[in-house]
Amino acid sequence: MRLKPPSGFRDFEPRDMILRKRVISTLENIFLRYGFDPIETPVIEHWEVFEGKYGEEAETKLMYRFKDPWSDKWFALRFDLTVPMARFFSLKRPSLPFKRYHIGRVWRHERPQKGRYREFWQADVDTVGSPYPEADAELLDLSINAMLKLGFRNFVIKLNDRRVLKGIFEEELALSNVIEVYRAIDKLDKIGYEGVKTELRKIGLNEETVNKLLEIISKEYDVEKNIIDLVDQFPKNKNVRDGINHLSSIIEYLGSNKKYVTFSLNLVRGLDYYTGPVWEIILKDIQIGSVAGGGRYDNLIEKYAGASYPATGISFGVERLIDAGKQLGLFKTEKSTFTEIYIISMTPKAYKMAWSIARELRDNGFFVQIDLMRRSERKQREYASKKGIPLTIIIGEKELSTNEITIYLRETGERITAKRKELINVLKARIKK
Amino acid sequence: MRLKPPSGFRDFEPRDMILRKRVISTLENIFLRYGFDPIETPVIEHWEVFEGKYGEEAETKLMYRFKDPWSDKWFALRFDLTVPMARFFSLKRPSLPFKRYHIGRVWRHERPQKGRYREFWQADVDTVGSPYPEADAELLDLSINAMLKLGFRNFVIKLNDRRVLKGIFEEELALSNVIEVYRAIDKLDKIGYEGVKTELRKIGLNEETVNKLLEIISKEYDVEKNIIDLVDQFPKNKNVRDGINHLSSIIEYLGSNKKYVTFSLNLVRGLDYYTGPVWEIILKDIQIGSVAGGGRYDNLIEKYAGASYPATGISFGVERLIDAGKQLGLFKTEKSTFTEIYIISMTPKAYKMAWSIARELRDNGFFVQIDLMRRSERKQREYASKKGIPLTIIIGEKELSTNEITIYLRETGERITAKRKELINVLKARIKK
Repeated sequence: MRLKPPSGFRDFEPRDMILRKRVISTLENIFLRYGFDPIETPVIEHWEVFEGKYGEEAETKLMYRFKDPWSDKWFALRFDLTVPMARFFSLKRPSLPFKRYHIGRVWRHERPQKGRYREFWQADVDTVGSPYPEADAELLDLSINAMLKLGFRNFVIKLNDRRVLKGIFEEELALSNVIEVYRAIDKLDKIGYEGVKTELRKIGLNEETVNKLLEIISKEYDVEKNIIDLVDQFPKNKNVRDGINHLSSIIEYLGSNKKYVTFSLNLVRGLDYYTGPVWEIILKDIQIGSVAGGGRYDNLIEKYAGASYPATGISFGVERLIDAGKQLGLFKTEKSTFTEIYIISMTPKAYKMAWSIARELRDNGFFVQIDLMRRSERKQREYASKKGIPLTIIIGEKELSTNEITIYLRETGERITAKRKELINVLKARIKK
Repeated sequence: MRLKPPSGFRDFEPRDMILRKRVISTLENIFLRYGFDPIETPVIEHWEVFEGKYGEEAETKLMYRFKDPWSDKWFALRFDLTVPMARFFSLKRPSLPFKRYHIGRVWRHERPQKGRYREFWQADVDTVGSPYPEADAELLDLSINAMLKLGFRNFVIKLNDRRVLKGIFEEELALSNVIEVYRAIDKLDKIGYEGVKTELRKIGLNEETVNKLLEIISKEYDVEKNIIDLVDQFPKNKNVRDGINHLSSIIEYLGSNKKYVTFSLNLVRGLDYYTGPVWEIILKDIQIGSVAGGGRYDNLIEKYAGASYPATGISFGVERLIDAGKQLGLFKTEKSTFTEIYIISMTPKAYKMAWSIARELRDNGFFVQIDLMRRSERKQREYASKKGIPLTIIIGEKELSTNEITIYLRETGERITAKRKELINVLKARIKK
């Protein structure tokens, strides 16, 4: 019997879960501060919901698609949380702006490797209804605060606008269909500049165009000065102007937080549906790819709703953040239990008292374990110690006769005694909830 | 384009999610009080993990099974959380007792109807390693406290032990294979006594046996007196004795909580893997089926681990609890947002101040929305009111010049003024976090 999960799928032990829950609830709290509310959608959608939304590679190679054995209809596991949100929005038509967050799993049939899984968690925030830079700026501000709250310091948000690229490519290089060019540039991190050149040649660009294009995207730009220069360079190009104006407004709203943002013409994002600003959060100290990414997609919802709704969003990669935080020493997986108190029964007679103390502690909100296996004092002690449970309460003959309880504090090695009726107060002073 | 999720699958709006999150976190807090820790497993498992565990109907008709298009292997969506836990335990071999909780979705291809979905949430707690009634009693004690904490009062835990039934059936009715008989009895709630009779005839029992069997299971038993009588009735039957002794111990541990328990010979549970005590929680005031159920399964883990590990658990049906709580008026879905404060910008000039106040409030932990759509004061007010956001802060020319902020309290209609620098303290007094 194969006991391991399918390749690319994972089990999480309590030690992993304790960290995951902390990271996820930190993100969630930040999302709530910015006025986003939770929704949930099924893990399965009708195939047609996904069809034509992500590009060919995703649809033919990466999606978990299967035929429902009963209805003979095609279903697929969700590939991201953005498309299900677009469907949800179109069905429910909530009042605008619709600001939702959604934290959940998605599935992609990638080659499993370090930091890349087939089942992984995304934490998404999206705003539907506003075409204005305020909505984008709010998401970037939220992202910066989320990163800081998680403990990251040395990160940068790479920012671009697809209209700027499109404008330059059209005017300078006379390119009409830029989606394929975006896909080639999106691989830059993985395949480098030479790799991107090869890809561009493959889609039919001549050598001169390839070189010019590479020159444009490889330049460093200052977030405030250079992006204005670009408008001067292409004074009559509406796309460049619209893109740059939008980015400038975003940066103005960010105030002092703009120090986390750089302008990068080589950032395009892989998915087809983006229409304006796009961004990614990169950690400077380690090579782990982006930990979050997003952008504006003003035309996606129309495919479901029939009418056009501007929308913008960002998706945090939960495992990327966790893996990065561990690597940087910010997150530790030391705790393997939430249990705060273990009650040792030294004799079978003590068990009744242990049960009654456990009940009282639990009623007071403490996380408590008692012996369920009729083990010796030593075995119980070993278990509590191995699990790293911070407090141990010992109940034996002496405790039964004197009604005084002995408490052992693992971290300091301290032993204290408490009268039975004062126990709760003594523990409340030691365990802050 | 079909915008609705597949049949039996559901979307959850913020208003649903706010209630769901409350119910789930209440359960989770109770699980932690009893020393259970969280784990997570993939939604997909190799088919062989499930094969032969749930009985024929489940495997042939109810499970979402599909062939992985890449590996040509058979996979299935998980049908419950118990079997994945057994696999997880056998792979990881954590120290004993292994006490885990797991709250997540499972999939069953049932006929969708009121209160019955194809994708639904279970909240499971299980203890591996203890064959003793302490472990079962702890789960029942936990269940009673969970129900009370959720607000339910008029409920009963139906308790039985499969060994008691097996002993009686063997001695009185000379039945050897009782699994089919259990399945027939399990349908009692759905098909009634006459229906069960028909099922029993179908599997070959003669009329006399059918009648005797029905007489046995339809009797009312008192949780303390009658179960002891049963031992006197079958003095030499080891199964009856073992079962009754185990149940008696459970009831003794429960102390005053035993008032929530009844002894029911007609409770068997549908799944094949139970070996000892079984239980279900029933609400007395409404017809909704059981809201939780579980029991002891001492032989399941052996199928994965090779060695035998006693185990016992309970599974709460999250949607059943929510549907029941709504029907009984315990749960309300009035709130459609977590947002606490909406900041209205009366003029475009006020927006900058709104943004800076929003930042300060968010840094102080408040959940805040500001205008992202450049709407009129009236439209902003309508939005805040429709969402039911409790506090509105208004910023206009007056506020800009005097640095005094107006706060409007939706519930009481009150209007208060606060100096800019005292705003946080004024709000902290109004919004308890």
